[in-house]
Amino acid sequence: MIILGIDPGSRYCGYGLLELDGRRISGAGCDVVDLTAQKELPARLDLLFNAIDGVLEEFKPDVAVVESMFFHKHIRSVFTLGHARGVILLTLARHGVPIVEYSPREVKKAVVGNGNASKEQMRYMVNQLLKLKTPPKRDDAYDALGLALCHHHRIKFQK
Amino acid sequence: MIILGIDPGSRYCGYGLLELDGRRISGAGCDVVDLTAQKELPARLDLLFNAIDGVLEEFKPDVAVVESMFFHKHIRSVFTLGHARGVILLTLARHGVPIVEYSPREVKKAVVGNGNASKEQMRYMVNQLLKLKTPPKRDDAYDALGLALCHHHRIKFQK
Repeated sequence: MIILGIDPGSRYCGYGLLELDGRRISGAGCDVVDLTAQKELPARLDLLFNAIDGVLEEFKPDVAVVESMFFHKHIRSVFTLGHARGVILLTLARHGVPIVEYSPREVKKAVVGNGNASKEQMRYMVNQLLKLKTPPKRDDAYDALGLALCHHHRIKFQK
Repeated sequence: MIILGIDPGSRYCGYGLLELDGRRISGAGCDVVDLTAQKELPARLDLLFNAIDGVLEEFKPDVAVVESMFFHKHIRSVFTLGHARGVILLTLARHGVPIVEYSPREVKKAVVGNGNASKEQMRYMVNQLLKLKTPPKRDDAYDALGLALCHHHRIKFQK
C-alpha cells in the first residue's frame, strides 16, 4: 500500500510517500514542487497540476492525505491556498485516488504525541520514524510526510 | 473576438460569452454549470474542470474575465470558492487563454453605471444590453455576462 501526503501551497507544494508492507513502513520519500519559477498564479497552478499528475502516474498511491480546511488569520493567504488545494483535489479526483483529511493538530498528535508540537519537534520525529537518507530541505516536505504518517498511525490502530 | 466571463462557484458556475464584430456585440450566450449532482468537493471540481474545458474547446475565447479576489465575511466560503477559482484558472492556463480580472464594483460601474448597483439592476441592464432570447435563470450567469460586458466596455473605450 502506498500513502501520499500532500501539503498544498501556491509557492511550494510538499509531497511525501510511504510504502507499507502490511502495517510496517518499508519505504519513504518526499520532495517539494517549486512553483516560484512562474510569477502568475494560473501558470503556477498549471505547473502544480502537471507535477502532481506526474507523481500520481509514477507512484500510483492507494490513498492521498491532505490537510483539512483550516482557518488562517490572513484571508488573502487562505483564498490563494484554496486555489492550490482545489487543483490538488481535482488532480486526485481525476486519478480516482481516495482522499482523507486531517487537521494540523491531529497530525502533530499522531507524529509527536502532542497536538501543539513545534515545527522542530515535527522534523525531529519524522526523521526518527523514517530515518530518511537525505532529509527534506523544506518544511513543506516534512508536513507532507507528517500527513502520510498520521494516516499510517490511524490505520495501524484501526485494523 | 470572443470574450468569456466566468463566475466561479463550488455549487453553480456561471459563464457568459460575447461575440464582437469590431466593437459591436454581434452575439451573446450564457449558461450555468450545475455541480450539485456531486456531493464531494473533489468530484465537483472534476465536473467543473471538464465543463469549462468543453466550453473552451467549443468556443475558443480570445480572453477570459474572472472576478478579482474579493473579501467575504465567511472565511470558509472564501476557501471553498478559492478551490473552484483555482480550477478555473488552471483550465484557462492549460488552454493558453489570457485572463483579466475586475472587481464586482468595476463590473457594476461598467454595466449599470453605479458601483453599488443591486442584483436586480444588473439583471435589468444585462437584458437591456444583450436582448437575450432566453434570459438566464440564475444570477451566476448574469454575473458572468456582467464580467464579459465590463471587459467589452473597457476595450471599447481603450482603442
